[in-house]
Amino acid sequence: MSKATSPDPHARGPSGHEVRDQIVDAATEYFGRYGYDKTTVSDLAKAIGFSKAYIYKFFDSKQAIGEVICANRLNMITVALDAAVADAHSAPERLRRIFKALVEAGSQLFFQDSKLYDIARTSASESWPSARAYEAHVKDLILKIVREGREAGDFERKTPLDETVDAIYLVLRPYLNPLLLQHNLDNAEQATIQLSGLILRSLAP
Amino acid sequence: MSKATSPDPHARGPSGHEVRDQIVDAATEYFGRYGYDKTTVSDLAKAIGFSKAYIYKFFDSKQAIGEVICANRLNMITVALDAAVADAHSAPERLRRIFKALVEAGSQLFFQDSKLYDIARTSASESWPSARAYEAHVKDLILKIVREGREAGDFERKTPLDETVDAIYLVLRPYLNPLLLQHNLDNAEQATIQLSGLILRSLAP
Repeated sequence: MSKATSPDPHARGPSGHEVRDQIVDAATEYFGRYGYDKTTVSDLAKAIGFSKAYIYKFFDSKQAIGEVICANRLNMITVALDAAVADAHSAPERLRRIFKALVEAGSQLFFQDSKLYDIARTSASESWPSARAYEAHVKDLILKIVREGREAGDFERKTPLDETVDAIYLVLRPYLNPLLLQHNLDNAEQATIQLSGLILRSLAP
Repeated sequence: MSKATSPDPHARGPSGHEVRDQIVDAATEYFGRYGYDKTTVSDLAKAIGFSKAYIYKFFDSKQAIGEVICANRLNMITVALDAAVADAHSAPERLRRIFKALVEAGSQLFFQDSKLYDIARTSASESWPSARAYEAHVKDLILKIVREGREAGDFERKTPLDETVDAIYLVLRPYLNPLLLQHNLDNAEQATIQLSGLILRSLAP
């Protein structure tokens, strides 16, 4: 018996991964052109040349496709943030870099892929798992940087660690949350320099 | 010749102020009920029982009416902020109070007068004079508080004054700009306590 001609229905076919990827790629292009909010799975199916039922074999809903697109994009941003931070030589410099990299990644998404920004906005307003994971990743980066700076004697140690980390995250939040960032892009570069300065003054030993 | 029966057309009638106030009051109620964005001067005129032409004798546009409503509301918030600040006994305490009062005033507008929040949102996104004046007032309050704290020895004096003030304003901005505040209301009380703490640590001498 050939698996290729008679796939296990529970595994959704032997090439399930490839078909999923194919749908996600096509959807990224389609949503990137026509937007996410106002298009339906039917529109998407027609554009790809698949039946709607076939797409539903792989994804439960439009949101499930949006989730994968969003997670892919946030992964790209996460990689860029990690690289920006790794590239710095001290905790204060890492903090400055993370802020700068956040605004660069967000601006690029907003200005170059404005239709995909729809998905990011929706993911933030509906608190999708991908958006929550991204926020948690940024918070964890901040925690590591603060801890490193405290150990190196660059940062004060009186304030409880979680209080310091939470407050820094709150200062960064308007520049990482897409619902907020869209209203913060004017002058964002200058703003993040000023805010990094304020954060570093608050961390002075 | 009686002024009451033949008013100077340039002064728009001797009771111009009263009529303006009457229109503004009615518009505040009308927009407060039906929203600002989706209603027209015609709708408003019909509801008040004035002709559209008569309203246009006093206001050039719907925005001109919205501007007055917005300015009135922002004046109320400004008075509340000034009172909260005046009531405190030191610069650090004044900073905490201004943050708290901002969130209280904004939350009240958002939750109790959500239709008028439309106007506030529009004023912020179109940068109306009333919105700019409000922002300038808050910035000026921060300047006065920082200056007072520096003179009293509560705050450090190394950082240039305008740099300190601009950065503090940027931390407050997500809680005073209506476009941002609407996405910051969950957990805003806790957030402003944490952010006040961070600001005060950044100001430590």
